[in-house]
Amino acid sequence: MFSFKIQSKSAGSNARTGKIRTSRGKIDTPIFMPVGTLGSVKSVTPEELGDCGAQIILGNTYHLYLRPGCEIIDLFGGLHDFMNWRGPILTDSGGFQLFSLAKLAKITEEGYAFQSHIDGSRHLLSPEKSVEIQNCLGSDIIMCLDQCTPYPATRKEAQQALELTTRWAQRCKQIWEQSQSKGALFGIVQGGMYTDLREKSLADLMEIGFHGYAVGGLSVGEPKNLMRDMSAQTIPMLPDQLPRYIMGVGTPADIVELVDMGADMFDCVMPTRNARNGQLFTDTGTINICNSRFKYDINPIDDVCECYTCQHYSRAYLRHLYMARELLAYRLNTIHNLYYYLRLVKQIRGAIQRDQFGAFKTDFYAKRVE
Amino acid sequence: MFSFKIQSKSAGSNARTGKIRTSRGKIDTPIFMPVGTLGSVKSVTPEELGDCGAQIILGNTYHLYLRPGCEIIDLFGGLHDFMNWRGPILTDSGGFQLFSLAKLAKITEEGYAFQSHIDGSRHLLSPEKSVEIQNCLGSDIIMCLDQCTPYPATRKEAQQALELTTRWAQRCKQIWEQSQSKGALFGIVQGGMYTDLREKSLADLMEIGFHGYAVGGLSVGEPKNLMRDMSAQTIPMLPDQLPRYIMGVGTPADIVELVDMGADMFDCVMPTRNARNGQLFTDTGTINICNSRFKYDINPIDDVCECYTCQHYSRAYLRHLYMARELLAYRLNTIHNLYYYLRLVKQIRGAIQRDQFGAFKTDFYAKRVE
Repeated sequence: MFSFKIQSKSAGSNARTGKIRTSRGKIDTPIFMPVGTLGSVKSVTPEELGDCGAQIILGNTYHLYLRPGCEIIDLFGGLHDFMNWRGPILTDSGGFQLFSLAKLAKITEEGYAFQSHIDGSRHLLSPEKSVEIQNCLGSDIIMCLDQCTPYPATRKEAQQALELTTRWAQRCKQIWEQSQSKGALFGIVQGGMYTDLREKSLADLMEIGFHGYAVGGLSVGEPKNLMRDMSAQTIPMLPDQLPRYIMGVGTPADIVELVDMGADMFDCVMPTRNARNGQLFTDTGTINICNSRFKYDINPIDDVCECYTCQHYSRAYLRHLYMARELLAYRLNTIHNLYYYLRLVKQIRGAIQRDQFGAFKTDFYAKRVE
Repeated sequence: MFSFKIQSKSAGSNARTGKIRTSRGKIDTPIFMPVGTLGSVKSVTPEELGDCGAQIILGNTYHLYLRPGCEIIDLFGGLHDFMNWRGPILTDSGGFQLFSLAKLAKITEEGYAFQSHIDGSRHLLSPEKSVEIQNCLGSDIIMCLDQCTPYPATRKEAQQALELTTRWAQRCKQIWEQSQSKGALFGIVQGGMYTDLREKSLADLMEIGFHGYAVGGLSVGEPKNLMRDMSAQTIPMLPDQLPRYIMGVGTPADIVELVDMGADMFDCVMPTRNARNGQLFTDTGTINICNSRFKYDINPIDDVCECYTCQHYSRAYLRHLYMARELLAYRLNTIHNLYYYLRLVKQIRGAIQRDQFGAFKTDFYAKRVE
């Protein structure tokens, strides 16, 4: 079961709100998906994710395949029971991790031949294998295996990658049908920084037909302006009536801008990873909790924030915990940052519903002092 | 405000239950106190401590004095508000840490002259300073600064340490009175492994007069039998109508044995530290979650345990998190171990109240397979 319905649009913008329905619950879009690489969103429980406003989380095929492995997750009937998260899960295909760990992976028509970054063991991740693993994980939204184009890349490289991505997408669709997969299947648009290649990639994928379309190959090292330009050209091409997922993006401002272009779904390690590095998000910008100006600061991270951390702890306490490398620091910081990201998309949805997205955006930038 | 009332005693044993009243709440004894060294019980929140059954926690004078320092904690009116724990807090005096970090500390009549283990800065921890810091922390139970006797120690060394401890205890009592401290004040019995010196130490302290008496200098490297013998001889000497606190002890079996001897209060890093090393407590003994036999184990750590971890997660999941060094592992393990310790003392209290402590003890050992 999978459906998507647009619920409101904002005048003078491509921004829209919608609702995705899955057998494990509804998702209001635009939505941000916290990243749970190894079967936990680092340092927090599923209950805390719910309190932060999470509706769907992301799991990593590559990492979970290697550790703990499908054999174990299968005993639990999937990732949901294994990790105690009852809501929907989107799983990536493993393609992006193998792109990032390129030294350990070799691409052939068949798939990615790679060595485990943990023990050096040899594996083949084919499109079929990727869908099979995602089926085992019990994924609610399965991503096709793709070849991500690096930045910079020649036109020829970008074209080859998108064509392979298309052939793999066909194989993913076929195995998805044969295996009577319970999750929805999303295609990933590649094409590097070449608009016409993006267009071709999308046209090829639409011929195969998917439940939703993702834009891959962004935030891979290109300048911020180029990422935004590429998004501005690609997102409006994506079918209007299906969910549009921009992979691995991004900062709060990126999310505001890409929603404006018509994007519905986001994932990024930024709120969780930066939390563990002491960087915290607020409406006026980011702060680093290590900063000595917080030493005697009895205020919460953000006066207007209603997260567990801001309701109970001061900047002085959080700085102390962080400087002492106390485990609780990572968790309290993570809760705040996830709450911030999920509150941001909630505010965005509210603004679009009231047809005030433009005013929201003006206000969003006006508050920032960076 | 501080009082202690014995509520029940067990026939054929020195075990007793009681109630300590403080201005921040009641404590049922026998009780185990989780250790919150640096202003957090590592990895868990105050709410989770409450869910585990914690009634009182321990804070470390030495560590909190160095980091974040009294100036900061003072802004919050004490440790409770700083760390968001509303229940009673017992603070140690700093003596044990300076005993453990002996290379950095020099003992004089005045106190401990020491260098910070963090930045090498020089400090003096006198009895007066220790009480002053504990006042600043807003401690509900203040411990006198003592000199812990190492093991092994000659009779002369043990005697000198106990005599210095007595003189310091006098100074602690004096500054405690002058400063109109809000916390209760406990004396610490030293005397090494010499029963008559323990007796002398106690007699000296009782002449000064305290709200409760602790036994220090146990679990400092002596054989287990000697620790138990020393406890068996010392605990019954302690005044019957006041709380008896055995510092830094110990294993679940130690607690059962020392309750049998008449002890009321315990603290130990074992449940929290061992949790972070993957060692988990159950009624049948400890398990190490790393063990490959748990790889496919869909059962909780302990079938009879009602902690959050056992209610929601399997051994296979906990092993996976631990092997992957996921931050959530330390927390879920800590919750289980604290729940185990606090359930143990709760069961002990119930057994004493029903006058079945002997039967409880028999059953406690019968279940263990170690």
